[in-house]
Amino acid sequence: MKQIKYPSREQWTDILKRPALNTESLFDTVRGIINRVRAEGDAAVIEYEATFDKAILTSLAVTEAELEEGVALVSEELKAAISLAKKNIETFHASQRFVGHKVETMEGVICWQKAVGIEKVGLYIPGGTAPLFSTVLMLAVPAKIAGCKEIVLCTPPDKNGKIHPAILFAAQMAGVSKIFKAGGVQAIAAMAYGTESVPKVYKIFGPGNQYVTAAKQLVSLRDVAIDMPAGPSEVEVLADDSANPVFVAADLLSQAEHGVDSQAVLITTSEKLQGDVMKEVERQLAELPRREIAEKSLANSKLILVKDMDEALELTNEYAPEHLIIETENYREIAERVINAGSVFLGSFSPESAGDYASGTNHTLPTNGYAKAYSGVSLDSFIRKITFQEIRPEGMKAIGPAIEIMAANEQLDAHKNAVSVRLRDINCKS
Amino acid sequence: MKQIKYPSREQWTDILKRPALNTESLFDTVRGIINRVRAEGDAAVIEYEATFDKAILTSLAVTEAELEEGVALVSEELKAAISLAKKNIETFHASQRFVGHKVETMEGVICWQKAVGIEKVGLYIPGGTAPLFSTVLMLAVPAKIAGCKEIVLCTPPDKNGKIHPAILFAAQMAGVSKIFKAGGVQAIAAMAYGTESVPKVYKIFGPGNQYVTAAKQLVSLRDVAIDMPAGPSEVEVLADDSANPVFVAADLLSQAEHGVDSQAVLITTSEKLQGDVMKEVERQLAELPRREIAEKSLANSKLILVKDMDEALELTNEYAPEHLIIETENYREIAERVINAGSVFLGSFSPESAGDYASGTNHTLPTNGYAKAYSGVSLDSFIRKITFQEIRPEGMKAIGPAIEIMAANEQLDAHKNAVSVRLRDINCKS
Repeated sequence: MKQIKYPSREQWTDILKRPALNTESLFDTVRGIINRVRAEGDAAVIEYEATFDKAILTSLAVTEAELEEGVALVSEELKAAISLAKKNIETFHASQRFVGHKVETMEGVICWQKAVGIEKVGLYIPGGTAPLFSTVLMLAVPAKIAGCKEIVLCTPPDKNGKIHPAILFAAQMAGVSKIFKAGGVQAIAAMAYGTESVPKVYKIFGPGNQYVTAAKQLVSLRDVAIDMPAGPSEVEVLADDSANPVFVAADLLSQAEHGVDSQAVLITTSEKLQGDVMKEVERQLAELPRREIAEKSLANSKLILVKDMDEALELTNEYAPEHLIIETENYREIAERVINAGSVFLGSFSPESAGDYASGTNHTLPTNGYAKAYSGVSLDSFIRKITFQEIRPEGMKAIGPAIEIMAANEQLDAHKNAVSVRLRDINCKS
Repeated sequence: MKQIKYPSREQWTDILKRPALNTESLFDTVRGIINRVRAEGDAAVIEYEATFDKAILTSLAVTEAELEEGVALVSEELKAAISLAKKNIETFHASQRFVGHKVETMEGVICWQKAVGIEKVGLYIPGGTAPLFSTVLMLAVPAKIAGCKEIVLCTPPDKNGKIHPAILFAAQMAGVSKIFKAGGVQAIAAMAYGTESVPKVYKIFGPGNQYVTAAKQLVSLRDVAIDMPAGPSEVEVLADDSANPVFVAADLLSQAEHGVDSQAVLITTSEKLQGDVMKEVERQLAELPRREIAEKSLANSKLILVKDMDEALELTNEYAPEHLIIETENYREIAERVINAGSVFLGSFSPESAGDYASGTNHTLPTNGYAKAYSGVSLDSFIRKITFQEIRPEGMKAIGPAIEIMAANEQLDAHKNAVSVRLRDINCKS
């Protein structure tokens, strides 16, 4: 990790720099795969599965028997842990239910919003080194609460054509409608356009590598919505001299082990803490199974010493971290001043791991500084708010003349006329 | 208009087809302009303004003197109308303020969301045949309520380098921070990357032609958020034999006059209404100043007769119209069954024009079937919901073991360790 002491404001941009994403350069490759899946359906997906995942499949859908078989393999201990996490995620996301109320903007002019679940959603769960059953919960639980009618899940199978039992268990428990063995670009294309077996969905969620991200971006240009653009995961710990260096080091490492491009940043007002954390990271690192990955990402990570908490907060808001852990004395007061972050963890006993798995908050969050403009996934991500209005004759009399004047000034006479014919009708009857 | 009677379900896809959007084919042209603005700043924007808008500018910012001068030119009548509209838009959008509450998902595990305004937003207002001051209100009023600190507006000047007085008035009244004379792709690029005079923003809103849409999509791949993809405007009227054909025809025409690719669709259970509306459209069309535009878009528009209200609703939800006007007897009951639409207008005295200008709802809505996945612009569009969590030692004891098991099963041992170090600390102290 790089130790930086009292950087000048001119250095900020450079210090906060993230690895550049360039998904556009993958568009041509990705477009080819998408177009083949769109044209040839299941057959193309099956072929790509053989090529990219080395899995020989005859069909994509996970059968009831495969589901039962997989679920039976999950230990009781893990089932209980997943159930506890599911319950908390459910409690927090159910509390986000939107209830619209009618607003009378003028007498006789009643407007309101109503939340309606997106009918068909697609969830992508990547394969790779670890089975991300936690992400299944984070996406399927709110989808179910939102009232999405069809919840489709795609995840790549292993070489034997199997999906990890814990993913099957989490999907079954969270209420996923259909599970398919498909990964990468071919999975995104299948959900965006539909195949013989995979239903077409209206919005696609979930993490993935740069090819998956490029595929999501390409299909979102025209044909389907996506949750948000994704980049490498990142954490910032904001700490003063009251922080426990053992906890801080553990938090930085839990981010660093994600991947070689993960970002872990400490911003602190304490020179002592900066040094202690540096040593503690080295000590804990030696014991980690994913040491090699963590070492590489730590090479890009920073321990930054600043002059006071005001500067620390300014730097934090400029960075806009995906995860922000505040381990300081008056952490509640400091949290009030956070403007740009995805998810904020307060105090010494709120590690990022808690939000990653089981506290109830969502772990699908804006990376790469997107927290300046995007929220993380929440119940909102699975609904639309449709606006409604009912105008009574007295309401039309109140706002009609203003509409006529505005429409005439925008040179939209038919817009004006839609009001005029009604005002004439009202005036004749009264 | 095409009259269609009792179409079979197989015909639906064809009947509901919209004009194809292909912004990707414009990406190369658009990218060239974006890159030049990014590299050369104001000078490039000024040059493009001379080329595309025939305006010779020496600077982009609207000065205080120009603003005063423009505002003075707006008639008192129009000022009063805009003020009334602004008040209603403000009332409805202020009612959408989000107040998060703390949720204890388990004892000692407290989670909540907090809404924070996006600090810097950019609003694009197109030029062209009509000065869209109503769109200024629809974007700037909620931005102000959301607490956005910097609200930047770009709109193309006329050949004399002037911006329409009504746009200046609406912008001043709604609290826009800075107004710039810039249109098209160069305006989007200026707001996405910043120039000497135009501040870089985090999210860009507003309608525009296909080049503007392509530019918004391109910059959104990496650098800035956008409101939503945009297509031609559209309305569906859903009516039974209780509907007034004069109102229905006026509503269809108010959409048709927007542009030659606008869509106006009637879905009705009444053969008599279908015929009457056909005649009434012809009659009203003859009197419209924008007759030529409306005639062209009507050529693609449809009057569809279906067998009953169930089918009408199914067809409507499949179409997912941007605007839906329900002119039927029991319109409230029918509105309850709408799943896919941007904004819904209930009863005989709720024309689309009301929502376009002055009732209080937003007129920036999902077109092109995007209503299946997207909401229209609302206060939500200008905020982010940041999640917070505070876990107390007893909370960590409650969820810690589950996190350890899940992290170990996802092979993320540093995630597990961030919990283990805390559980050890808690157990030592108790």
